[in-house]
Amino acid sequence: MGRRTGEPPISWLMQAALARHRFISLAAGFTDNPSLPVAETRAALNQILRSPKTGQPALQYGSTAGDPALRRLTAEHLRKLDFEAVASSSFSSSSSSIEPKSRTRTRTRDGDEIYSSERLLITSGSQQLLYMTAEALCDEGDIVLVEDPTYFVYLGIVQSRGLRARGVHLERDGLDLAHFEKVLQSLKRSGDLRRLKLFYLVSYFQNPTGVTTSFGKKCGLLKLLKQFERAAGHPIYLLEDAAYRELSFCPEIKGRDAAPRRPRSSRRDDPTIPPSALAIPGAAERVIYAGTFTKPFATGARVGYGILPEPLFTAIKRIKGNHDFGTANLLQQLFARALASGAYEKQVARLRKRYAHKARVMKLAIEKHFPPAVEWWEPAGGLYFWARLPRNVSTGVKSKVFQTAVKNDVLYVPGELCYADYPTRRKPIHEMRISFGSASEEDIREGIKRLGAVLRKFLAVKQAV
Amino acid sequence: MGRRTGEPPISWLMQAALARHRFISLAAGFTDNPSLPVAETRAALNQILRSPKTGQPALQYGSTAGDPALRRLTAEHLRKLDFEAVASSSFSSSSSSIEPKSRTRTRTRDGDEIYSSERLLITSGSQQLLYMTAEALCDEGDIVLVEDPTYFVYLGIVQSRGLRARGVHLERDGLDLAHFEKVLQSLKRSGDLRRLKLFYLVSYFQNPTGVTTSFGKKCGLLKLLKQFERAAGHPIYLLEDAAYRELSFCPEIKGRDAAPRRPRSSRRDDPTIPPSALAIPGAAERVIYAGTFTKPFATGARVGYGILPEPLFTAIKRIKGNHDFGTANLLQQLFARALASGAYEKQVARLRKRYAHKARVMKLAIEKHFPPAVEWWEPAGGLYFWARLPRNVSTGVKSKVFQTAVKNDVLYVPGELCYADYPTRRKPIHEMRISFGSASEEDIREGIKRLGAVLRKFLAVKQAV
Repeated sequence: MGRRTGEPPISWLMQAALARHRFISLAAGFTDNPSLPVAETRAALNQILRSPKTGQPALQYGSTAGDPALRRLTAEHLRKLDFEAVASSSFSSSSSSIEPKSRTRTRTRDGDEIYSSERLLITSGSQQLLYMTAEALCDEGDIVLVEDPTYFVYLGIVQSRGLRARGVHLERDGLDLAHFEKVLQSLKRSGDLRRLKLFYLVSYFQNPTGVTTSFGKKCGLLKLLKQFERAAGHPIYLLEDAAYRELSFCPEIKGRDAAPRRPRSSRRDDPTIPPSALAIPGAAERVIYAGTFTKPFATGARVGYGILPEPLFTAIKRIKGNHDFGTANLLQQLFARALASGAYEKQVARLRKRYAHKARVMKLAIEKHFPPAVEWWEPAGGLYFWARLPRNVSTGVKSKVFQTAVKNDVLYVPGELCYADYPTRRKPIHEMRISFGSASEEDIREGIKRLGAVLRKFLAVKQAV
Repeated sequence: MGRRTGEPPISWLMQAALARHRFISLAAGFTDNPSLPVAETRAALNQILRSPKTGQPALQYGSTAGDPALRRLTAEHLRKLDFEAVASSSFSSSSSSIEPKSRTRTRTRDGDEIYSSERLLITSGSQQLLYMTAEALCDEGDIVLVEDPTYFVYLGIVQSRGLRARGVHLERDGLDLAHFEKVLQSLKRSGDLRRLKLFYLVSYFQNPTGVTTSFGKKCGLLKLLKQFERAAGHPIYLLEDAAYRELSFCPEIKGRDAAPRRPRSSRRDDPTIPPSALAIPGAAERVIYAGTFTKPFATGARVGYGILPEPLFTAIKRIKGNHDFGTANLLQQLFARALASGAYEKQVARLRKRYAHKARVMKLAIEKHFPPAVEWWEPAGGLYFWARLPRNVSTGVKSKVFQTAVKNDVLYVPGELCYADYPTRRKPIHEMRISFGSASEEDIREGIKRLGAVLRKFLAVKQAV
């Protein structure tokens, strides 16, 4: 498998960003340096390590599934996120009966609590959960569906494990369900449906497009998967990657002080955050939820988690036993403490304001410097803008646009890296992911100015030809 | 693959140890709680998080291969361990020309520095390196050689990845080279040599037997591998797992104050620690060295490392990019600081004294309570005693001995878990691994007393029959 595993583009991009200081990287998905919770982390670690009573357990091995307190706090945190979302949003749903108080919402078909810590596994970042899910579910040659475009590191997993990915079109409110059905039909016709194991969906403020898939679309997606399961002959899972979920730009939605079930707004244009697919009645047996504390708190303390239905929970826990028999306990205790004390929530609130501001700075710069022929999508959360040049202008690593941008000391992620490789369609080559995560405000302005100048040059040339 | 992955025995043993407080676990390979460096870790983390300048980088993503400072310090640490070993030991070697000052010793055939940080990858415990090495080198059905018995979690990796393991007999000074050659011959005859990819060797104070493989035997091992490579048609690697290397019971060997190349002792019976296989001239292209800071410092802060020859270094770095794109930076900074300040060395010295003492306590208890029919091996380092009952007395999970021990609130690791499964030999069923790592002195005495009573009961019955 080592022979198959390609150079992951993120490593190269990270190296480039870390190594060359003159560079302005709008590429790496790093988080904002000045916002990192240095003092908060120090305080939490001091509390943990103040006495042998709490210090020794933090420096000792734990169990493979994770620290019991952190698992409980995380399950509770996730339940809150979903209940608040249910209460505060006016999302559209094809399945209309989302009743927060109904027992069906918090139980799977066989009676387990959906948000039970028993179904929750702590991992070394959510990346590890994505990898282990592929290990547990997929054999070489199996098919996974992804958004078109999708998170490029996931495509690295697909490639290295010898899987086949098929893309489903993405619209501004998430997945194109009509295209999804067509893809399923085509897999059925070709006999490939029996190789389809899961749909990988980056559901909130997607990497790379910033798109959030609406709750209605998630319901539709699961309904279609279920419909085609019979023909597949086995379960087809939805792997919901919610890495950016907590990084929305609208602070009032996430306040923890108000009663969680009271609607916060009744405005039709309420930019609310939909619940996860776990909240879809009866669907939790098919939903794998991948979450993380890394992006919303500190990327240097890698702790993620998954909610998993059986038999996957047990299978993936065993795989984790072979990978590392448990994520570093010290980091787990850090997050247990930060969640319990409220430090985590405070940091998330701070970070959301900060990113909302940096996104505004980037938006203004783009408006000022990008030529009108560039279409771009403004996100409502997360770390990324998505831009489209005219269809014939390549942004790829070997393109003149990219090379000139690098020469002018600015880096972006070429959109083509975010598309799965398969023979039946040509990859779009004219897009780019631009991140405001790690760059300073000044660098965002200067980086976009440099990038704008490059784009103007090439679009002018193209238009002149 | 999830369907194939069995329940790892270590999880169950850990759970049992963690959950039942009346229990005395002589099973889990946990480290000594009171010795954990709580104050030292707190001090190091405080230094790191005192200012944004050092705090922010520690809470930010790093690169996949690891923090450059930690990689450099680790490579230097490893070089020291090998040079001290070369200088202080009177090990026997079939390859006689170990000259510490010769250039050949520190360069691979193609001129790379053996102990260069460029060849060093930071991992989430050394376990992750073991796993990724199997991923990089082995396809389903491939063969790995292991010691008979070996580290049982490694057998979990073998099983879950569909590999075949073959065992090579172990003697008190390590591998039985004559048997090793026989196994290689037999693989050659059966045409299976082309499926042989690596030899997994736990070279210092082995888990589970406590045996250390001499340098001479390592030289012999590599020579044989090389000899059979031609027939295999590809490289066969030695994966040297040195997890317990620094936990020897003889403190004078490891003092860092003396000049590293001055022999410490010329006694013939010097219980020295041999150099790693990296020190064998010209052999470093075939040696994968797996080390860890976890066992010698703090098991809750999981950081391991590997020295890898190309093309493996690049392949495994890419696989790590897919697993987690880098071990938590905060933990890496912790170890960089602890290594640089000397806190790491101090802790190792403290721990070695502590374990030496606990091993003595266990030895005295065993002498007092075990019936004479039980043969046991006293270790010179690490965490384990290895005991053998008469050949017909089973110690397995379903055996009367094990069940009675559990009923009497004492737990050990059944030896049979440490043997690879294969059809051509019957697994020994009459052994046990007994750990003095986590139990208190009082619990060691009481646990051995309880276990001794169980053994006396069953050995008496057997002898009566």
